[in-house]
Amino acid sequence: MTALFEGLLRLGDTTLILSHRVSEWCGHAPALEEDIALANTALDLIGQAQMWLGLAAEVEGAGRSADDLAYLRDVWEFRNFLLVERPNVDFGHTIMRQCLFDQWNGLMLNHLSGSTDDRIAAIAQKAAKEAAYHTERSADLVIALGDGTKESHARMQSALDAFWPYVGEMFTADPVDTELARDGVFPDLASLRAPWDARINEIFASATLHKPDSAFAHQGGKSGKHTEHLGHLLTTMQWLQRAYPGATW
Amino acid sequence: MTALFEGLLRLGDTTLILSHRVSEWCGHAPALEEDIALANTALDLIGQAQMWLGLAAEVEGAGRSADDLAYLRDVWEFRNFLLVERPNVDFGHTIMRQCLFDQWNGLMLNHLSGSTDDRIAAIAQKAAKEAAYHTERSADLVIALGDGTKESHARMQSALDAFWPYVGEMFTADPVDTELARDGVFPDLASLRAPWDARINEIFASATLHKPDSAFAHQGGKSGKHTEHLGHLLTTMQWLQRAYPGATW
Repeated sequence: MTALFEGLLRLGDTTLILSHRVSEWCGHAPALEEDIALANTALDLIGQAQMWLGLAAEVEGAGRSADDLAYLRDVWEFRNFLLVERPNVDFGHTIMRQCLFDQWNGLMLNHLSGSTDDRIAAIAQKAAKEAAYHTERSADLVIALGDGTKESHARMQSALDAFWPYVGEMFTADPVDTELARDGVFPDLASLRAPWDARINEIFASATLHKPDSAFAHQGGKSGKHTEHLGHLLTTMQWLQRAYPGATW
Repeated sequence: MTALFEGLLRLGDTTLILSHRVSEWCGHAPALEEDIALANTALDLIGQAQMWLGLAAEVEGAGRSADDLAYLRDVWEFRNFLLVERPNVDFGHTIMRQCLFDQWNGLMLNHLSGSTDDRIAAIAQKAAKEAAYHTERSADLVIALGDGTKESHARMQSALDAFWPYVGEMFTADPVDTELARDGVFPDLASLRAPWDARINEIFASATLHKPDSAFAHQGGKSGKHTEHLGHLLTTMQWLQRAYPGATW
């Protein structure tokens, strides 16, 4: 498996799995406006996943499609960040996770827009437009809820504390990331941390939230070592193609 | 589809789905003793399901096995009572549901032990022994928790109120039940209600629980009209055979 294929799976699987988690809110969000916004976010993310996984399949050259990669791989073949497979818990957790990811994804897409791989640059340029809207929206909601009522503040702090150990994986390069950065395909992941921290610090200051001091980071999602949550998500997400192989619209 | 096949699916699916629900507690029960007891209950129930579905497959004569019926049917082909597909919620709900079902199953198996169909009588005689232990155990736990602390009492009453609308389906005969009762294969389901009520009233009196007055009963499980919970359960329960068709030990 080449570094390029692996790197593309990480982008594609992370947006795919987050899209599925966000879509779980469909019909369940606390307000109609939020329900529609979350459904739209999920659709944008699955659009990104389709582009990344489509290119991954093309790069692999084994005759698989984006759909094959999404619906016919098993849990250990997924390469998403552990952050995005965590359960939704409540609206606060969902929005906090979205903010932590959106800030990373916005920076990542800006860098990828200048990738030495033209195909990656083209996808990133397209995705960056909607990602800019996502980063603004989730940041605004974190501020509104963090600096809101006593309960909303407590829930956002609890969400931040719960997700914090899953932040580090987004910035920790392994040999795949290093190889891709060397060739100018991906940015140096560690270099995204300072601008991410700067923006996140602003958001949390406005949100009156306390950023945890711990630098501990769970690792494993990017190399296929997942929590039990991903397996349960896949049973639901892949059900139709597993029960009715080859089914189409 | 013959009445005999339908009737056997009802017995097999009800014990199969309840077995799966109970097995979800494995490793999560509030005490080690209860964890082991619930796992054993799940095993007994899946043993009953295997016998009922095995006979159903034989009666159908279409070359399907008990495993095919369990793992390769879709949600609308299942015939279990709605009661058993409801989520576990908490330990109290799980034990209350078990007690409501065990009392029915004990009576049902005693009648089926004298079925005019020798194959059914043989299965029922075998299952009745372990069922007698189940009915005693779940009744004892309902009494201990109902007549326990303020919190355990409140949880058991809440569980009883939640499950009560799902009790009626066990005693409401439809044309399938009526045909089987006419031939002496099944008992008249309505005739089980009086002895069930008598025993349940004793249990609830000891448990200081109030039996709801409502006679409203959800219907549909026995004819394939299920709640959304069953679909989610099946994605998990059937995952292995769906992802790896024909897999064996």
